[in-house]
Amino acid sequence: MLIKEVIAEQAQLAQDAALKMASLTTETKNAALLAMADALEKRQDEILAANVEDVETAKKNSTRLNMIDRLILNPKRIADMAEGLRQTATLPDPIGREDFHVTRPNGLKIRRVRVPFGVIGIIYEARPNVTVDAAALCLKSGNACILRGGSEAIRTNKKLTDILNDAAISKGIPEHAIEFVRITDRDAIIAMCRLRNLIDVIIPRGGAGLIARVVEHSIVPVIETGTGVCHVYVDKEANLEMALKVALSAKISRPSVCNSMETLLIHKYIAETFLPDIAKLMIEHGVELRGDAECLKILPDMKAATDKDWSTEYNDLICNVKIVDDVDAAIAHINKYNTKHSDAILTEDKAAAEKFQMQVDSACVYVNTSTRFTDGFEFGFGAEIGISTQKLHARGPMGLEALTTMKYLIEGNGQTR
Amino acid sequence: MLIKEVIAEQAQLAQDAALKMASLTTETKNAALLAMADALEKRQDEILAANVEDVETAKKNSTRLNMIDRLILNPKRIADMAEGLRQTATLPDPIGREDFHVTRPNGLKIRRVRVPFGVIGIIYEARPNVTVDAAALCLKSGNACILRGGSEAIRTNKKLTDILNDAAISKGIPEHAIEFVRITDRDAIIAMCRLRNLIDVIIPRGGAGLIARVVEHSIVPVIETGTGVCHVYVDKEANLEMALKVALSAKISRPSVCNSMETLLIHKYIAETFLPDIAKLMIEHGVELRGDAECLKILPDMKAATDKDWSTEYNDLICNVKIVDDVDAAIAHINKYNTKHSDAILTEDKAAAEKFQMQVDSACVYVNTSTRFTDGFEFGFGAEIGISTQKLHARGPMGLEALTTMKYLIEGNGQTR
Repeated sequence: MLIKEVIAEQAQLAQDAALKMASLTTETKNAALLAMADALEKRQDEILAANVEDVETAKKNSTRLNMIDRLILNPKRIADMAEGLRQTATLPDPIGREDFHVTRPNGLKIRRVRVPFGVIGIIYEARPNVTVDAAALCLKSGNACILRGGSEAIRTNKKLTDILNDAAISKGIPEHAIEFVRITDRDAIIAMCRLRNLIDVIIPRGGAGLIARVVEHSIVPVIETGTGVCHVYVDKEANLEMALKVALSAKISRPSVCNSMETLLIHKYIAETFLPDIAKLMIEHGVELRGDAECLKILPDMKAATDKDWSTEYNDLICNVKIVDDVDAAIAHINKYNTKHSDAILTEDKAAAEKFQMQVDSACVYVNTSTRFTDGFEFGFGAEIGISTQKLHARGPMGLEALTTMKYLIEGNGQTR
Repeated sequence: MLIKEVIAEQAQLAQDAALKMASLTTETKNAALLAMADALEKRQDEILAANVEDVETAKKNSTRLNMIDRLILNPKRIADMAEGLRQTATLPDPIGREDFHVTRPNGLKIRRVRVPFGVIGIIYEARPNVTVDAAALCLKSGNACILRGGSEAIRTNKKLTDILNDAAISKGIPEHAIEFVRITDRDAIIAMCRLRNLIDVIIPRGGAGLIARVVEHSIVPVIETGTGVCHVYVDKEANLEMALKVALSAKISRPSVCNSMETLLIHKYIAETFLPDIAKLMIEHGVELRGDAECLKILPDMKAATDKDWSTEYNDLICNVKIVDDVDAAIAHINKYNTKHSDAILTEDKAAAEKFQMQVDSACVYVNTSTRFTDGFEFGFGAEIGISTQKLHARGPMGLEALTTMKYLIEGNGQTR
């Protein structure tokens, strides 16, 4: 069989499962999630054995150390996965919620209800916890899923999905609700992207390269997630003590994630005092600063930022700094270089804050706090399938509802046009 | 300049306009729409002169008659366009509506509001009224647009957009809010589809070929509209008098549109009486019937349906007929061949109706009425940009809200993570 035939067969099985899943009760779905959690813990030894094989292979292939770190499982990480499943069971079921209804003058009763997408394709990289997360959120939202993880974690992911499926089926979830793609060739990704009538939506989770490849090849609708070139702008009316604390935290609290700051913008009126202060703090915390020409006039030792730097997601202890004339210049810089993810203004000037929130074209626009809060859990969604950086369907942190679509149900008594 | 450079320049101008448009007041937008309506009527002679040139060229190129009919304007059609603009001015403004808010335990105030997409690309065929409709709905929803109509209507569309822009600018709408693509090569469509950071969403409006081309090439998110292979299923518990009326109307009231029925499914218990009755009515109204083997046993003169027929959108006085064993068989046939647009069941059996509504995977699922009601105006939306047949973002008739996205606005007082 060709790769594309294998994948199409899996997607068709998932579609058949999806048809049945649309009618599952909340109770059945929750019972399955709890059984899946128990099964991960009970069958921990099998998972760890598969994982050891993956890790050994990765080491032989001299995979980068941080990739291996993401790949490694231990009892604590498995317990965390199980806890995630149990948490998902406690979330409200998004399916069946009516969000619009009207009775028309001709008597037609129109209702709009949330329904599952059907089959969700998830394409991701080395972290095995994404396998469990994605399966749990798709199941809770009544969707079948077809998962394609990175080749490094192939044995671990295969074992995890086998265990999850066994437990789910034992509680009344149809077979093939969680389809796992075992083909590790990149062609498997392309094949998924072409299955327009068998996969309803694809969500890539991973680096910019993975996301760009999916967007380029997909004729299935895609929800883009992820890359964040986030900005913090310190206005002339900022509380500078607060600004020091927020800007530092936005960079250093977890530099590897998409919601951390990559560029700090400073109003020219406060730059002579604020820049040396924040630079000192940043450098103390190991941050490499890259400044524009105006910054270098104040701090001549600073490295100069290149044009490419302004649009780079470092995910590291590196930070661009630029001095701007006013809030309009800050907004213009952000709209030119950001990834429409998260940006923040620090100011006590309400008019400046409002203008910034209105005109910055990002999913999340913050006043007097850090971009690091762009997160499904921090927003109170109880779950997160990713951060959407596109404008279609979902924007910002995506909880369970982002995994649903809608359907109009219309009842009449013989009306015609 | 290369085609792609010309289009990119136009899209950049539209993006610049979009930034300003996000802050326009409802009053400004409505005043512009009314001025646009007046201008169309006042400058009717210019429009008709441009249109005559297009029609003459089309005749010389032996364009199909129905295409020429769609192209031709007259004072009545211009008055209808103006009326559409005035109606759009009366619709509620979707921008700024808050649809979610929460204060988190750490004090962060999170609000989610509807905002414009930015720049909407509309790619369509010969009807000049789409130019006016699309410009009006994009403007009302605070979006700039970049319009690419069919080459047949190029002079008419150019004249229309010039007039609309003049009137809009006179009321405070920024220049380039309505960008019209004058390049008629198909490469212009491809170029639009590649402008990922300059066009926020593309909506193709037209035949299946146009839509497939856009989906294939686009790395800009697309909202698919249109093709409808719609079904009516007459259950064994149907009120047969109502079923005759609804099925006939679903086929003949306007066969050229996407919400008309293409396939009639009949429960086997009632087929011997219902099929001859509906066939007689259909044939009287000029409909060609194509049946499955079971139909041919009852009406041996009926033409046999081929496998391709079941998935064909005829948009014509042709109708497939199939006899099915039960509601499950009807659902299975529909989910195999429909375009996820609109399907109907006629039955007095509530359980069958509910199963049908739950399991048929379509945007609009009807009980005891016709698929022909899938329409933004019939649903009370006051406008329609198209019928979405995809599940992402919008599904079914799309009103103004489908042209908006959302943005999270978060206010804090120095919180960090």
